Amino acid sequence: MVKVGIIGSTGYVGAELIRLLLNHKKVELSAISSNSFEGQHIENIYGNLKKALSLKCTAAEEVVSSSDVIFTALPHGLSEEIAEKCFQENKVCIDLGADFRLQDENEYSKWYGKAFSKPHIHPLSVYGLPELNRNKIKSSHIIANPGCYPTSIELALMPALKEKFIDTDGIIIDSKSGTTGAGRGLSQTTHFPECNENILPYKINEHRHLPEIQQILSEMAGTCIKVTFVPHLLPVNRGILSTIYCSLNGAQHADKIYEIYKKYYEKESFVRVLNVGETASIRNVKYSNFCDISLHMQDESNRLIIVSAIDNMVKGAAGQAIQNMNIVLGFDEKDGLEFIPPAF
Amino acid sequence: MVKVGIIGSTGYVGAELIRLLLNHKKVELSAISSNSFEGQHIENIYGNLKKALSLKCTAAEEVVSSSDVIFTALPHGLSEEIAEKCFQENKVCIDLGADFRLQDENEYSKWYGKAFSKPHIHPLSVYGLPELNRNKIKSSHIIANPGCYPTSIELALMPALKEKFIDTDGIIIDSKSGTTGAGRGLSQTTHFPECNENILPYKINEHRHLPEIQQILSEMAGTCIKVTFVPHLLPVNRGILSTIYCSLNGAQHADKIYEIYKKYYEKESFVRVLNVGETASIRNVKYSNFCDISLHMQDESNRLIIVSAIDNMVKGAAGQAIQNMNIVLGFDEKDGLEFIPPAF
Amino acid sequence: MVKVGIIGSTGYVGAELIRLLLNHKKVELSAISSNSFEGQHIENIYGNLKKALSLKCTAAEEVVSSSDVIFTALPHGLSEEIAEKCFQENKVCIDLGADFRLQDENEYSKWYGKAFSKPHIHPLSVYGLPELNRNKIKSSHIIANPGCYPTSIELALMPALKEKFIDTDGIIIDSKSGTTGAGRGLSQTTHFPECNENILPYKINEHRHLPEIQQILSEMAGTCIKVTFVPHLLPVNRGILSTIYCSLNGAQHADKIYEIYKKYYEKESFVRVLNVGETASIRNVKYSNFCDISLHMQDESNRLIIVSAIDNMVKGAAGQAIQNMNIVLGFDEKDGLEFIPPAF
Amino acid sequence: MVKVGIIGSTGYVGAELIRLLLNHKKVELSAISSNSFEGQHIENIYGNLKKALSLKCTAAEEVVSSSDVIFTALPHGLSEEIAEKCFQENKVCIDLGADFRLQDENEYSKWYGKAFSKPHIHPLSVYGLPELNRNKIKSSHIIANPGCYPTSIELALMPALKEKFIDTDGIIIDSKSGTTGAGRGLSQTTHFPECNENILPYKINEHRHLPEIQQILSEMAGTCIKVTFVPHLLPVNRGILSTIYCSLNGAQHADKIYEIYKKYYEKESFVRVLNVGETASIRNVKYSNFCDISLHMQDESNRLIIVSAIDNMVKGAAGQAIQNMNIVLGFDEKDGLEFIPPAF
Repeated sequence: MVKVGIIGSTGYVGAELIRLLLNHKKVELSAISSNSFEGQHIENIYGNLKKALSLKCTAAEEVVSSSDVIFTALPHGLSEEIAEKCFQENKVCIDLGADFRLQDENEYSKWYGKAFSKPHIHPLSVYGLPELNRNKIKSSHIIANPGCYPTSIELALMPALKEKFIDTDGIIIDSKSGTTGAGRGLSQTTHFPECNENILPYKINEHRHLPEIQQILSEMAGTCIKVTFVPHLLPVNRGILSTIYCSLNGAQHADKIYEIYKKYYEKESFVRVLNVGETASIRNVKYSNFCDISLHMQDESNRLIIVSAIDNMVKGAAGQAIQNMNIVLGFDEKDGLEFIPPAF
Repeated sequence: MVKVGIIGSTGYVGAELIRLLLNHKKVELSAISSNSFEGQHIENIYGNLKKALSLKCTAAEEVVSSSDVIFTALPHGLSEEIAEKCFQENKVCIDLGADFRLQDENEYSKWYGKAFSKPHIHPLSVYGLPELNRNKIKSSHIIANPGCYPTSIELALMPALKEKFIDTDGIIIDSKSGTTGAGRGLSQTTHFPECNENILPYKINEHRHLPEIQQILSEMAGTCIKVTFVPHLLPVNRGILSTIYCSLNGAQHADKIYEIYKKYYEKESFVRVLNVGETASIRNVKYSNFCDISLHMQDESNRLIIVSAIDNMVKGAAGQAIQNMNIVLGFDEKDGLEFIPPAF
Repeated sequence: MVKVGIIGSTGYVGAELIRLLLNHKKVELSAISSNSFEGQHIENIYGNLKKALSLKCTAAEEVVSSSDVIFTALPHGLSEEIAEKCFQENKVCIDLGADFRLQDENEYSKWYGKAFSKPHIHPLSVYGLPELNRNKIKSSHIIANPGCYPTSIELALMPALKEKFIDTDGIIIDSKSGTTGAGRGLSQTTHFPECNENILPYKINEHRHLPEIQQILSEMAGTCIKVTFVPHLLPVNRGILSTIYCSLNGAQHADKIYEIYKKYYEKESFVRVLNVGETASIRNVKYSNFCDISLHMQDESNRLIIVSAIDNMVKGAAGQAIQNMNIVLGFDEKDGLEFIPPAF
Repeated sequence: MVKVGIIGSTGYVGAELIRLLLNHKKVELSAISSNSFEGQHIENIYGNLKKALSLKCTAAEEVVSSSDVIFTALPHGLSEEIAEKCFQENKVCIDLGADFRLQDENEYSKWYGKAFSKPHIHPLSVYGLPELNRNKIKSSHIIANPGCYPTSIELALMPALKEKFIDTDGIIIDSKSGTTGAGRGLSQTTHFPECNENILPYKINEHRHLPEIQQILSEMAGTCIKVTFVPHLLPVNRGILSTIYCSLNGAQHADKIYEIYKKYYEKESFVRVLNVGETASIRNVKYSNFCDISLHMQDESNRLIIVSAIDNMVKGAAGQAIQNMNIVLGFDEKDGLEFIPPAF
């Protein structure tokens, strides 16, 4: 049994990691830490875990020392030091925060207001989108788990950008996210009476996931890509739906595009390209590691609309982190992630 | 035009008072105050008020000095002094907090952890449930606006208790409330991802509305009544539904009971006794000042089940306060309150 | 008192018309009809109307004969005959269906599968968007009340198109609508367990509101406009939020654009252009006739993002119909529509 | 691998059975049937199943012939014949409908409007509440899977009734259920705009689960028990919360009662008795087979309040059916059911 630990286990991402790791037959949860709840039993913080786990929250150092794989689910700026330590001790660090997602330190400074604190270890890290970087992930010890919005967007656009049949200019991304994306912390926008019966666009063109999206799309396309990205807060618990608008490079047959997408993802366990006439929605992926993608074309124009849906807490966070762990450890990528999304 | 003001205008009750008072043709909103937002324009705090009201939040004293009727919507313990001042200046104070609801100071101390600060003015106040105390309200200058749960429960039980056909022992009240009842303040229980897709019983037999309920039911029955009261937090914005279980004093015809209820409330503008076969629900009263009541009997037992529904922010708070204001000022009780509940 | 009637009063639009018309001091609801519920009391179909209205549903002809203004809220193809009759009898017909929205009969046939049945009366009708056609509405007897999506989109784009500072090519509209837009009829997509906790894009580039949107935007711009339009079904009862992406014709100062929008709508009672830094959302307009519009620019690009929000049942249907009635009858445009949106 | 099949696989209970059985390592889904969708692929009906299952819906007979264990999820009156056939062929039938729940044929006729069609096989069936009838279930071939409301209520009251410390008279049960309990069929009460933002009491003292509840509680107590039972429809997808009011037989220490409950269920895998001060809620059990029970006493009275929570589709239907299958087949009772409820 591989020993795994979570640093920052009482936030929402940490709680979801616990749930999923307890379903994984080849790993054992050895230690969990929490700044806010150190010394407390996790089942007293998350009542859903009663009879399932009674670990006490400990300190971050203990998690590192007692685990082979360490998941960090922390506010930005706190994972670099832990990652360095893991690297020195030949352990694997999978970071679910933002510290290793951006390669360009200037870009990081601009969006996060601080420099890298351990710049020398950044080149050792890999961006953990398995469908893009599977081989690099296998041999890496520091994995930057992608953001939730970026996951939904990058998977949706990868075949089109790699196969170069869309215009890399003018891509517009209208994303809608459930409220768990905002985490456990309280705010007026996630206060029930203000969030319920509403939909709220926010951080229009100012969301910190924007540079990550642009970095990865640019890498996929082999050219610099700037996008328009508008996230919206939805009155649901889970899920991200991204509606993506782009232009085809000249006339294309719908059949051809479907074929490319289907082929591109045919060996992927967690990406489902829907059939003509079907539309991706949160409902069919929630509580699962699936990303559903549907394609929509207008007859009269060269517009391609791509809709993608993921569960922001699973494929958008904890599930993808476990998928990365499976790759690093040489397990079957589906281990611990084979649960079917419920129909309702 | 009568001048009215609100002290504590930026909490949810205050915001609802503003909305309703702006629809009232015979009063003018002269001043509003807020501790948290003093000096700010109300439309910048509540975007719904744009183009409707651009008052600045001022201090409590200014509200008193510039208004004839003062609504206080404050945490407990802060209204007594204001009410005293209103009384001295021959103004009307309608308190939407808890300071004047309990007559017995010991009971108040027990539940609120402090004594009355102005005990001499308490005998001057009246409990502002119009259907019970209309005549006393007319000549009072300090009105204790009832709590939301108590309103739904007292209206449901009044005919049965006054006409003495139910057992005053063993009454069980299972209430369900929308989240606006918890106010604007943030908490983990009203954080969207934890409140949504849930129902949470809370403060079982420990809710501060319990002594108020027992005081008024006892007054109605002319004998001391103790009840079992379990509130539940519902994942909806508005409304309270109370399902009340009691025992009939001996066999009674359902027809007779309906007749008593219908007759009891036939002249009331805001109480609707439903017909046989109909069931009260939040949907039909929300955003209105109505209280719907339905009656349900079991053939084989002497059990009577009463279901009542109100909008907690209207009949349970701001609407009833305006109804009380109308009574005090000699207006038609329906003035400013005639809006129809939307069907959806 | 002007006599008004509703044909098709038991659908959702009809029910909302009843609610609003009962709040209007200068009109009297004389008759309502319903195919499904003829002969039944409306309060037995819509429990919210108890104590407010006890009219019986009658036949369409009776509504016409007993009213001066007739609202038709019917499936497409059923209003033309009624409108003709109204016209002959010198009455006003305000159609909340689709029969008079499209000027081009070919376009109508293409989207609705039938020809006009009374082509000669179509030239007599006017498209009832008051902010666009106020003067024509004043003297018209057949008013085509705009669709809900089109209202939210046309008001958002009108200043930009009239003042010609955006590119008329490549406009992308991502709209999100509450479930009441689908009406009272049952369907799997509005079945609670399938709609809740989801967001569903539907009729991508195939929605019947598309030709209406294109017709009016083209008229505003003075040139043919084709747009991309993707509606989404939201798990809320009310409201439409449209996020609209367009390109500026060359560099423009944000201040300038705000100034144009503010100026354009400064005399309009129901359009609120928000300030820099504010974002439109359903929450602030629901249950009201307001349309909120916010503007968002990217520094580095020439992209303009416009967000607009309306209540689909009020400004998007019944409220706008009453606004049209007020114009035709020479009333103040705000009569019966001055209610403030609730904060929650 | 044991072969299992589902008759009535496209209703909500069937869909949930599929999801759970696909997670079970010791069984194989051999065939599924559906009247409405015979001949269609299940993944085209339930998009969540894409990449997980592509069985075609077949006829009921084929399911019986190709399976060792047959789950029937059918409207009442349709399972008896199938159960008889299973019995004759020495197969196991687990019925998730109502056909075998009531022992008394008169009672069945009264509530379901028809007699037993195969009365001779009823004595061979067992009521499949594992915590009550584990030993009988082991050797039975016809298992009546309990109703959802009854499961939540019977588990809550079993220790109190078996240990005889509550009054068997006057028990009041106020239950609240998510909308999936009403199934896939459309109705006005589960139409999103009418169900959302509401709570609706329904079938007050007339719900078909009432005789089942009374039968089992009576059996537990060894005396005839009549209860008051009011179900409410909640605007959530999943879960049942039952708030149960009963009277203690004389004074009892809270500690003692907790001890009895904890002890009673200490060996049960799926029942969690919460600690003093904790309250059961849907949130902590949803998507799991757990039943949470919390106990609440009033100091001054002899009232005991029991709150229980289950997921109506899991412990209240498909999960419990699989638990029964595990018992019959001699598997570990937790096989395929060990998933942890998500925190949100």
